[in-house]
Amino acid sequence: MTNDTNPQTGGRFGAEVLDRLDQLAQFSESDEGLTRVYLSAEEKGAGELLIGWMTEAGMAADFDAVGNVVGRYEGNAPGLPALLTGSHYDTVRNAGQYDGMLGVVSAISCIKALNEAGERLPFAIEVIGFADEEGVRFQSTLLGSRGVAGTLDAEILDKQDADGTTMAEAMTAFGLDPARIGDAAHKAEDVLAYIELHIEQGPVLLAEDLPVGVVTSIAGATRFAVTVTGLAGHAGTVPMGGRHDAAAAAAEMLLAIEDRCSGIDALVGTVGQLTVPEGATNVIPGAAIFSIDIRAGDDTVREAAVADVEAALAAIAERRNVTVELTRTHEAKSAICAPWLMDQIRDAIGAADIEPRYLMSGAGHDAMAFVDLTDIAMLFVRCGNGGISHHPDETMTAADADLSTAILLDIFRRFRPKADGA
Amino acid sequence: MTNDTNPQTGGRFGAEVLDRLDQLAQFSESDEGLTRVYLSAEEKGAGELLIGWMTEAGMAADFDAVGNVVGRYEGNAPGLPALLTGSHYDTVRNAGQYDGMLGVVSAISCIKALNEAGERLPFAIEVIGFADEEGVRFQSTLLGSRGVAGTLDAEILDKQDADGTTMAEAMTAFGLDPARIGDAAHKAEDVLAYIELHIEQGPVLLAEDLPVGVVTSIAGATRFAVTVTGLAGHAGTVPMGGRHDAAAAAAEMLLAIEDRCSGIDALVGTVGQLTVPEGATNVIPGAAIFSIDIRAGDDTVREAAVADVEAALAAIAERRNVTVELTRTHEAKSAICAPWLMDQIRDAIGAADIEPRYLMSGAGHDAMAFVDLTDIAMLFVRCGNGGISHHPDETMTAADADLSTAILLDIFRRFRPKADGA
Repeated sequence: MTNDTNPQTGGRFGAEVLDRLDQLAQFSESDEGLTRVYLSAEEKGAGELLIGWMTEAGMAADFDAVGNVVGRYEGNAPGLPALLTGSHYDTVRNAGQYDGMLGVVSAISCIKALNEAGERLPFAIEVIGFADEEGVRFQSTLLGSRGVAGTLDAEILDKQDADGTTMAEAMTAFGLDPARIGDAAHKAEDVLAYIELHIEQGPVLLAEDLPVGVVTSIAGATRFAVTVTGLAGHAGTVPMGGRHDAAAAAAEMLLAIEDRCSGIDALVGTVGQLTVPEGATNVIPGAAIFSIDIRAGDDTVREAAVADVEAALAAIAERRNVTVELTRTHEAKSAICAPWLMDQIRDAIGAADIEPRYLMSGAGHDAMAFVDLTDIAMLFVRCGNGGISHHPDETMTAADADLSTAILLDIFRRFRPKADGA
Repeated sequence: MTNDTNPQTGGRFGAEVLDRLDQLAQFSESDEGLTRVYLSAEEKGAGELLIGWMTEAGMAADFDAVGNVVGRYEGNAPGLPALLTGSHYDTVRNAGQYDGMLGVVSAISCIKALNEAGERLPFAIEVIGFADEEGVRFQSTLLGSRGVAGTLDAEILDKQDADGTTMAEAMTAFGLDPARIGDAAHKAEDVLAYIELHIEQGPVLLAEDLPVGVVTSIAGATRFAVTVTGLAGHAGTVPMGGRHDAAAAAAEMLLAIEDRCSGIDALVGTVGQLTVPEGATNVIPGAAIFSIDIRAGDDTVREAAVADVEAALAAIAERRNVTVELTRTHEAKSAICAPWLMDQIRDAIGAADIEPRYLMSGAGHDAMAFVDLTDIAMLFVRCGNGGISHHPDETMTAADADLSTAILLDIFRRFRPKADGA
């Protein structure tokens, strides 16, 4: 971390934010690396720390019915509709310490600054630390934010972790009542918008030397599990022209996916898993399996790419005399950020003399869950180290933590609810 | 199996050969599938069965100093130099029952026919069942034939199997004296040539509707273990142009290998193993590992292909900003069959009204070991089922077993030692 002060804020927030992120990172199930999953003892400890900071910052704070930490800072009258903000405080396995937590901790520092200045806004602000965004323990991605958005299904309580513990049992052990998970839901009339600050988890802002950016949408995604079946054979005895090599077909398919998803803004395609089952040096592969992950900010762009990829894979399989089977394992529409909120974020960035950079979020975020409740927007903060994330090497500078928190505070101060008809 | 009789032999050999192969296949360490490894109890049982058949066929037969089964049929005078023939009687795991054993059993049937006719040739014939060609237990490929060729190193006795048993210990348990493995070696002046009958283990003869073929050479081989190292990243957040995707690079390399090794007779290139270690759907692969196996009948053809592949991989790595590391794991020169022996085999095939088809052996065989002792040649027999081998689906017809045994007998009867200066 470099440059601990920022010319525009005098370093008011940077040290506090990074120190608190270090403190939160102590709550990990492993000594090495940071792993903190939903409803774990470590999560309870981290949540209690957040509640303490929220209370100190002038908020009424507690766990909600699904384990989220919710702190409410009243506006200039009690019970006003609220601007929601925050992010998640669970992690992936062997995580970085900024993903999620930065958006909670920076928002708390903003409220602390308002409170210390005796400043009340014409609306309430709720800072929420979502208890389960990554879904590591129960494969329950976005559970915390869906709880607040009111889109949780009670069936989710039956999900089991790797040890066979159900979510309902884990909630009880955490001190929650699984019968009351609906209580976490907010009513639409009580909510003005949802704004999330989050580390970019990618290299775009870093490459362009910009500390922050405005998210335009959270990408929709289509995922496939693919199996290519050819014919195994002896690597020495089957002439090249007589082969039905599943790995060679898979390789050609991978390059077709890469080619189709390249050169188009806000579209990406990835083969993250690839293997020849029981492959041997001297055996022509009879099978190959791989994954496909295609994302785009625009659903029509993604759907066109998916259709072309499906056609390309079928054509390669036919030409190579192998079979290909695609199983769609995931399908999510994109979540579009609201222009009226993006405009307010752009104004705050512009006021800090920074060029507004609009970019897609390729990763999923809690904000996605809120499109069912209210309008959403996101402020991205530059990631260090080439943009690496979901990894202990995830990093950011104190200067960026400082500046982005100051901009978030300015966003809160400038915030005006959506005008009728806007 | 179809067509149990053959117009040229009246089915004299087919039923006997296939019945004996069925009997041998009972000696397996597993109830399902055929697995028989060096110095195992199953190998001893199979060897004793072979010795019984050899003895019945008029041969003096016993295990030799490394566990090979050697049966000697004297010529028209005792102690004459010998034509060596045979193949291996060990197997890979979950093997077919023709690979190796066919060459032993068919040769025994030939000698049985000579003996029953009271026919002696102007040279001795030794039929050898090699105890270890596949090298499954001790990674000791061609051990049996190298023992006879006199190229074994005593250091091999220290090799351990998966249970930590040394080869020396296993030899003692089998009833052999590890101090005397040199006794298996034959002297060059006692040997006229080595001729091996073997199932093709490939689809060439099947595709051309030919029962047998003449092997021109046993391919040399170069193998590499390859590691591609890129940079892991989030599948949603890193734009396509900013990636260092190890799997995409590996896919391009695989296709370059396939392309370089295609379209050239008697050259093959295979990527049999391919994997993204710890790959995840939503992570850009930071590493990929794969194997390369390049074989050719002509060493200069293989060496040129290897050099071009190495250059192509380096160029792909450079262009894609990844690193590639090749480790050469195996290097074997080709074993060329002797023209004077090939001519004799061609004559026998022609006498059976079959077009002589010359082909390379992409697989390794015991014959390779004999180039250090004498001239070699091989007769290939058509493989069924698309040419599949090293697999329970390996098959051949009774008619082909019959005809190929009759041709082998004719090769023995026509055999004349190499003329001086030939």
